[in-house]
Amino acid sequence: MYGDGVFRTLKMRAGKPLWWEDHYRKLKHDCTVLDLLCPEPVQLLGEINALVREWPDCVVKIIVTRGEGTRGYAPPAIASSTRIVTVSPLPDYAQHSNNGAVLRWCKLRLSRQPALAGIKHLNRLENILARKEWNDSDIAEGLLCDDTGAVIGGTMTNVFTLRDGCLYTPDLSQSGIEGVARLRVLRAAKMHEIETKIQRLAASDVLSADAVFLSNSIVGIWHVAQLDDRQWHPSGWTEQLRHWIDETD
Amino acid sequence: MYGDGVFRTLKMRAGKPLWWEDHYRKLKHDCTVLDLLCPEPVQLLGEINALVREWPDCVVKIIVTRGEGTRGYAPPAIASSTRIVTVSPLPDYAQHSNNGAVLRWCKLRLSRQPALAGIKHLNRLENILARKEWNDSDIAEGLLCDDTGAVIGGTMTNVFTLRDGCLYTPDLSQSGIEGVARLRVLRAAKMHEIETKIQRLAASDVLSADAVFLSNSIVGIWHVAQLDDRQWHPSGWTEQLRHWIDETD
Repeated sequence: MYGDGVFRTLKMRAGKPLWWEDHYRKLKHDCTVLDLLCPEPVQLLGEINALVREWPDCVVKIIVTRGEGTRGYAPPAIASSTRIVTVSPLPDYAQHSNNGAVLRWCKLRLSRQPALAGIKHLNRLENILARKEWNDSDIAEGLLCDDTGAVIGGTMTNVFTLRDGCLYTPDLSQSGIEGVARLRVLRAAKMHEIETKIQRLAASDVLSADAVFLSNSIVGIWHVAQLDDRQWHPSGWTEQLRHWIDETD
Repeated sequence: MYGDGVFRTLKMRAGKPLWWEDHYRKLKHDCTVLDLLCPEPVQLLGEINALVREWPDCVVKIIVTRGEGTRGYAPPAIASSTRIVTVSPLPDYAQHSNNGAVLRWCKLRLSRQPALAGIKHLNRLENILARKEWNDSDIAEGLLCDDTGAVIGGTMTNVFTLRDGCLYTPDLSQSGIEGVARLRVLRAAKMHEIETKIQRLAASDVLSADAVFLSNSIVGIWHVAQLDDRQWHPSGWTEQLRHWIDETD
């Protein structure tokens, strides 16, 4: 009813849920923040396996909600939750993936709510309003800033910029979602001794970067080809990052 | 899925939906803001009447959502909506209604999002987190401030303060929900030539007021009896306001 829940979107590859450990850990973390009972991994994996038998390569969505409540905002006295697992076909992102992603700026400004920032919860009206700002399928993604002008990320992706060999990604302590793909980029960068900085990024920081990348669990890594009048040429970094986030399970 | 919808909670009295014209107008307004197809009033009234035949005095909830979408945040190409009408018993608010409401401050700070402020949409995680802060049934309601310290309202009510014969209620252009009961208080005050001011209220403005009231479509008007160490005695204003908001249909 009130978006009182969290979710995960993950990729099935040859019948296996990609990056499962990270996804489950984040699901559990997000459930804890909202005080939701998190389903056991064995239960979820059983349900996923049953669903994907005929769809070895697809998108799996896991939703955990508070379950049945009464009419008002007070949560039920006994902790319980409802889980929903759905399967859908992999979207065709070949154009953006191969040629680089063309971005736009969204007009909507994200609000700041530290109590919910980072969490992949189901209150996503801001993302929906932002995604409604364009319907040109050549535009891969819209970038969002918060009301202070800090770049937070895309409507469905996290953003990274590269400058002088250092990777930057926005601080998500006030807005945005901490995606599992972002986590894996940061972890891989650390492992390969690439300097990373999680900090405030202004629009001008993005436009003046040497390269810009988007990440999520379905698209993996997109190289950004264009934003406003700025264009970026492909570099070896895209394949490098793609390889790195898949290196470990 | 993503709380992409709006709702109304209204009171049935002797089989009639109280303040129907105002509720429908607000529903339509909120649908327009989110670009949702609003159901026709005759359709909703037919469904309400069918549901309440055996419950002439109850709470009716109307939910309008975007309807079935695809997996992502992009809305379906063809405008459609799903409507849900439910009935529940009237809550027993006699204690708060008769003796006055005991309030507390919520720790959660509301975020500011002008694109959604005022709208009774389904992204209500903030209200749920705030309502989870207490479970003492003697506490009628929790008051919420935004991140700048401006008082916005209760978790399920709008707030009014009285000072030197003037009624004040918070500016809701950044946060909060513009309830129909609030609208009716403002309209009645104007009709009866009571001065009203919609403006920023600080916590100290509430605590130093001559009287404080809460409003919504189910409780009508609550006189606030206590907040922190401050206590307020009942006055003739409570019955006056209750009478006024019910004067017109």
